[in-house]
Amino acid sequence: MRNMKIVLQYDGGRYDGWQKQGNTEQTIQGRLEKILERMTGSLIEVHGAGRTDRGVHALGQVANFKVPDSFMAEEVKEYLNRYLPEDIKVTEGQEASERFHSRLSAVSKTYRYMIETGKKDVFERKYIYGLGHSLDIEAMRKAAAYLIGERDFRSFCAGKRIKKSTVRRLYEVSIEEQGSKVILTFRGNGFLYHMVRIMAGTLIETGLGKRKPEDMPDVLQAENREAAGFTAPPEGLFLVEVEYDT
Amino acid sequence: MRNMKIVLQYDGGRYDGWQKQGNTEQTIQGRLEKILERMTGSLIEVHGAGRTDRGVHALGQVANFKVPDSFMAEEVKEYLNRYLPEDIKVTEGQEASERFHSRLSAVSKTYRYMIETGKKDVFERKYIYGLGHSLDIEAMRKAAAYLIGERDFRSFCAGKRIKKSTVRRLYEVSIEEQGSKVILTFRGNGFLYHMVRIMAGTLIETGLGKRKPEDMPDVLQAENREAAGFTAPPEGLFLVEVEYDT
Repeated sequence: MRNMKIVLQYDGGRYDGWQKQGNTEQTIQGRLEKILERMTGSLIEVHGAGRTDRGVHALGQVANFKVPDSFMAEEVKEYLNRYLPEDIKVTEGQEASERFHSRLSAVSKTYRYMIETGKKDVFERKYIYGLGHSLDIEAMRKAAAYLIGERDFRSFCAGKRIKKSTVRRLYEVSIEEQGSKVILTFRGNGFLYHMVRIMAGTLIETGLGKRKPEDMPDVLQAENREAAGFTAPPEGLFLVEVEYDT
Repeated sequence: MRNMKIVLQYDGGRYDGWQKQGNTEQTIQGRLEKILERMTGSLIEVHGAGRTDRGVHALGQVANFKVPDSFMAEEVKEYLNRYLPEDIKVTEGQEASERFHSRLSAVSKTYRYMIETGKKDVFERKYIYGLGHSLDIEAMRKAAAYLIGERDFRSFCAGKRIKKSTVRRLYEVSIEEQGSKVILTFRGNGFLYHMVRIMAGTLIETGLGKRKPEDMPDVLQAENREAAGFTAPPEGLFLVEVEYDT
């Protein structure tokens, strides 16, 4: 079997997220598997690096799956793009080593959260969170600094009964202004359920003056979802890139 | 009565263009008039500067209409934005002089046509024409130069029985590259039915080597739609701005 690595772009607006759930077809994984089944005549499981939620977008999601050797990498990529809807696209497709796994081999992932502090542009309405208020960027940067490093992010996890470790390492949280837009970038070795959106929401509340930057250590220490801020809406979130050790 | 001037942004993707037609509500003009009727209790006619076609977008469409003096300009703008769907937005709204007319007072209009010569991005798929071929920009610029000035643009008009003058003045046709995108900008004192899209199509055919730049004068002289190129699709077209004296 040939192990295929693909890079994907998608507008998550009309999908129930990455992961297949029951018999819904409205997931990215479901769409890919259906096309691969039609191509090869057999069931093929597609593994994604990041399980993006309903409505979340991707600029560089990575996935892998096995196809019979008779299918060449380029052919698989073209077949997928021919049958995928126009809001999902394979931008790269190549054969990977047998041991490559999109999620398990990843060393880090980068997410971006887009905020409009001014008026939301009609053309970007589906790809940015329309906050409509100005933000104190310096306060947000101070708060963000407390998140960097290896931390227990339980307070930033929406899962109810969490059995596995909630310790993750954040390498970078940057906050940039671009005109009236504020762009949050998070790079880490892994992210819990809703973690990026809860971090974005907590930083937004800090930028609005509803929280103090110095309170962030308490939020972390609480190890309780209630201590953190709101879950920022999905339309502002993009999985930008998944990084691997060559 | 108070004469209102508004500036509008819209994603034309799901509309049958600017102009009201019969009893369809799926036009920008129809949407605005319905909301104004609800606000004032009387029928109000909205005049647009450019009658954008089905599927064409606007960054700066201008319109005017009369409301009873009891309605303040800011109030009208806010009321419209409250009830307009999220793909139409009033970005400016102010009282204009009694004699102001969005179309008749305009001195020029600027349209932009967006072309993707490489791979169409999932997020821009509705706002750019996915040509997918490289273009000879210099040839396009040479061809475009013949269009500038006062010309009879009958060859670039899709109307079948044209009774009125087809002479218009083009002030500017610029062709810019931005990565794999090519951006055509047209500024003129008026545009005929489908004129921008036919000019874009003819310039694209020139950029693809299907036409020679030197043939453009013949295309103009033919005064026949058949002599010009194809009508480029609406999703790449934006009404950018309408210019007025002061």
